[in-house]
Amino acid sequence: MIGIGAGDPEQLTLQAVRALRDTDVFFLLDKGEVKADLTGLRRDLLDAHVPRGTYRIVEARDPDRDRSAGGAAYSPAVGDWRSARAGIYERLIAGELGEEETGAFLVWGDPALYDSTLGILQEVLERGEVGFAYDVVPGISSVSSLVARHRTGLNRVARPVQITTGRRLAEGFPQGVDDVVVMLDAHQAFLRYADQDIDIYWGAYLGTPDEILESGPIAEAAPRIAALRAEARERKGWIMDTYLLRRDPGER
Amino acid sequence: MIGIGAGDPEQLTLQAVRALRDTDVFFLLDKGEVKADLTGLRRDLLDAHVPRGTYRIVEARDPDRDRSAGGAAYSPAVGDWRSARAGIYERLIAGELGEEETGAFLVWGDPALYDSTLGILQEVLERGEVGFAYDVVPGISSVSSLVARHRTGLNRVARPVQITTGRRLAEGFPQGVDDVVVMLDAHQAFLRYADQDIDIYWGAYLGTPDEILESGPIAEAAPRIAALRAEARERKGWIMDTYLLRRDPGER
Repeated sequence: MIGIGAGDPEQLTLQAVRALRDTDVFFLLDKGEVKADLTGLRRDLLDAHVPRGTYRIVEARDPDRDRSAGGAAYSPAVGDWRSARAGIYERLIAGELGEEETGAFLVWGDPALYDSTLGILQEVLERGEVGFAYDVVPGISSVSSLVARHRTGLNRVARPVQITTGRRLAEGFPQGVDDVVVMLDAHQAFLRYADQDIDIYWGAYLGTPDEILESGPIAEAAPRIAALRAEARERKGWIMDTYLLRRDPGER
Repeated sequence: MIGIGAGDPEQLTLQAVRALRDTDVFFLLDKGEVKADLTGLRRDLLDAHVPRGTYRIVEARDPDRDRSAGGAAYSPAVGDWRSARAGIYERLIAGELGEEETGAFLVWGDPALYDSTLGILQEVLERGEVGFAYDVVPGISSVSSLVARHRTGLNRVARPVQITTGRRLAEGFPQGVDDVVVMLDAHQAFLRYADQDIDIYWGAYLGTPDEILESGPIAEAAPRIAALRAEARERKGWIMDTYLLRRDPGER
């Protein structure tokens, strides 16, 4: 598993470049028409760093996830989807990879953060149909990329930071922390906090030519972000964004 | 500010390598005898990636931090220390950097996570004695490096993760999260949780030839970690470690 950074091809680490060059087969899973851009970016990355003719690409279609299942049904739907993916990954590894060959899954950002590939590979191993050794190459996460572009820190001195989902944030501001990074927020949960003393640092398509940044006191910035988000989503057909909420920003 | 990864020189990003090559003056701040190893590693990094004769190195002594100040006195002591550092950084930038030159501070891990350099540079700008433009190059944090080496994720599906300090963990397990990464823990606060249903993933000197990894149910792993930690600290004179606590590890 190779973390390839948040979108900027320059965010690859030297370790990741070396791993790309040691790979015989790249497994690219396409999540459907709106994500075709992302598959294209992965191909560009290989063209930029690995000599042609030294590797094969195997593409597969990711199973559709039942996104209509909300609330309590969320986890089981994710579970079914993971098992369906595990079946596909198992067939890819068994069918496309020679005995002594090395395969790679390219993961946006950091494979450790809100990515299912690691869990799926472990599920494939537990099934016991195919065996393999594997390593994880860490990548620059969209979280690191976001705060670097905003030139701010994740935490304040000696204080904690939490990384959570839009779904969780919609249920309430996390307890015991004032710095919260939110990922996978399709429903703009930040709007709920627009009347509080919070600074927001938001970014979309980080590290790509389409990157958009916006920040400021949430009361002023939230409507601007909502407008930018709607416009970008309309134009590109999909959006990948993340943000940091900093409560009581006057405290250092 | 250039994030240079958690210790493995291969963890540099292509963006960081480019930034190193565009730098005229590197400011290396030595935190005293026990951290001299770290200054040496930074020099090795420059030797490996930047042609000699294309840059200058300016070394300075970091002010001592009053580590005896505990409890409520912690934040003011940090504040004094930051101001003392701001004074040094101001003199370095004013005195050692030409009008059109580019300087760089090399930061271990990710500059956004428990590092004071960004706050200090902003304090220097606020003082108004010297002016400069600056950018942040994100790096692979010790957090990303830790979980990659253990081949596990930071979060579980759709759940949050918190990054906090040993001092905070000693006050109680954070509320509302079951996955907690702990940094800056000089007093092994994890020992307090050794009777709970928690898996621990621990690492020291990550990415360096001295790297040590240990993991498992905390009741069994905690004494092993305490012994490894004491032995390593004795041998090297300093230790840099971090760990992930995963409560109720049976839940996916």
